Amino acid sequence: MLGQFITLEGTEGAGKSTNLMFIKDWLAAKGIDLIVTREPGGTEIGEAIRAVLLNKNYTAMQAETELLLMFAARAQHLKEKILPALEQGKWVVSDRFTDATYAYQGAARGMSFERIAEIENWVQQGFFPNTTFIFDLPIEIGMARVASRGGETDRFEQEKHDFFEKVRSAYLQRASMAPKRYTILDASQPLEQVQKAIVNRLEEMMLAVEKMA
Amino acid sequence: MLGQFITLEGTEGAGKSTNLMFIKDWLAAKGIDLIVTREPGGTEIGEAIRAVLLNKNYTAMQAETELLLMFAARAQHLKEKILPALEQGKWVVSDRFTDATYAYQGAARGMSFERIAEIENWVQQGFFPNTTFIFDLPIEIGMARVASRGGETDRFEQEKHDFFEKVRSAYLQRASMAPKRYTILDASQPLEQVQKAIVNRLEEMMLAVEKMA
Ligand SMILES: Nc1ncnc2c1ncn2[C@@H]1O[C@H](COP(=O)(O)OP(=O)(O)OP(=O)(O)O)[C@@H](O)[C@H]1O
Ligand SMILES: Nc1ncnc2c1ncn2[C@@H]1O[C@H](COP(=O)(O)OP(=O)(O)OP(=O)(O)O)[C@@H](O)[C@H]1O
Ligand SMILES: [Mg+2]
Ligand SMILES: [Mg+2]
Repeated sequence: MLGQFITLEGTEGAGKSTNLMFIKDWLAAKGIDLIVTREPGGTEIGEAIRAVLLNKNYTAMQAETELLLMFAARAQHLKEKILPALEQGKWVVSDRFTDATYAYQGAARGMSFERIAEIENWVQQGFFPNTTFIFDLPIEIGMARVASRGGETDRFEQEKHDFFEKVRSAYLQRASMAPKRYTILDASQPLEQVQKAIVNRLEEMMLAVEKMA
Repeated sequence: MLGQFITLEGTEGAGKSTNLMFIKDWLAAKGIDLIVTREPGGTEIGEAIRAVLLNKNYTAMQAETELLLMFAARAQHLKEKILPALEQGKWVVSDRFTDATYAYQGAARGMSFERIAEIENWVQQGFFPNTTFIFDLPIEIGMARVASRGGETDRFEQEKHDFFEKVRSAYLQRASMAPKRYTILDASQPLEQVQKAIVNRLEEMMLAVEKMA
């Protein structure tokens, strides 16, 4: 069976990590061999890069630096983990991927999508996810969920409301440009409703893959 | 007076760091306002990236990851330190810069110069050093010097002889393609001779800058 690459995107507290585990269990129950992972990070070297990226003291970090670090971690993630798993026929589910770069480094930090695409093409050479779930919800709701979850905030989580509005819009814009690849989820709904929509898409994917096999 | 950007390149133990200090003192004695720096690193964030790059445990690091990390540190270095200093009319002297990327990640690790140039252009947008000193010497001599200097080896220093031969040839090749920008120094000579050649070039640079002013 052909390996499929699924990514989960959305603003803070939208439910990506919660539903990563849900998807993992749901697919595993269907007998699908899979791995779950996350960005930035996903490998030992990638996690070391993640630590640099999220360090709150690094307020002097330039937009170009941030972008190249993101793609450095991604290049490692792809070659060491994602591509080998897909080649073995495994499914790969990742908490964030390149759409996050367009949303955060692009829309929110102001780097042009064209400049990002240059590095994306250099690293990915046409590779992209089969399916991307966008967990969409009003920023305040996500923030409230994160606050009630507790813990310390990182360099990104310290940004202001307006920054995350830009992130949210960028995700929706990217989804509208390639509607087949994206599934937009109303993540303000109760978890049960969100997961019903996720299951719909996963069932579609399984059918499509069975047809191809 | 116009700021000048000088870089020092060469294989391990060629004398870059020793002569960085010599150049610093010589220029300062001429009344030139300058900073010295190094790559990878040169800024707090760059040094954090350097630590990831040099970590001996990271044998799984992909060529693309290494290249993007190098340029992530360089982007930070340029924007935070090098360009602001040059704009203030200061001279900047750096222990390694982009030629090292072509030599190490390119010639030695096998990434094509074309692929490197794509990232170089993305980051530097046509910016490059005014003068580059190539400290050229047989690999064994440099290795012997490093050994007698003592200390632990990093991820690069653990490479084999052949790797450094490729680095050395690449430096000479790049110098031959733009002979005006480069000064090749026979670094196997006694330090005094090497420094005489360095002073010749620095005097030329000062004259050229005075003419432009
Ligand atoms: N649909 C939902 N309704 C109510 N609460 C939810 C819903 N989805 C997730 N939550 C809760 O919101 C909090 C944040 O969820 P989660 O950590 O999955 O979000 P995230 O998108 O991974 O956030 P981050 O961007 O910070 O990683 C958790 O406490 C989770 O239980
Ligand atoms: N021309 C020379 N003749 C003899 N010894 C030299 C000469 N130049 C430098 N050395 C000595 O060789 C050793 C290595 O020099 P140095 O640290 O400057 O090299 P480097 O190019 O910076 O090396 P690395 O790539 O490891 O940073 C030092 O102990 C230095 O004193
Ligand atoms: Mg999460
Ligand atoms: Mg040195």
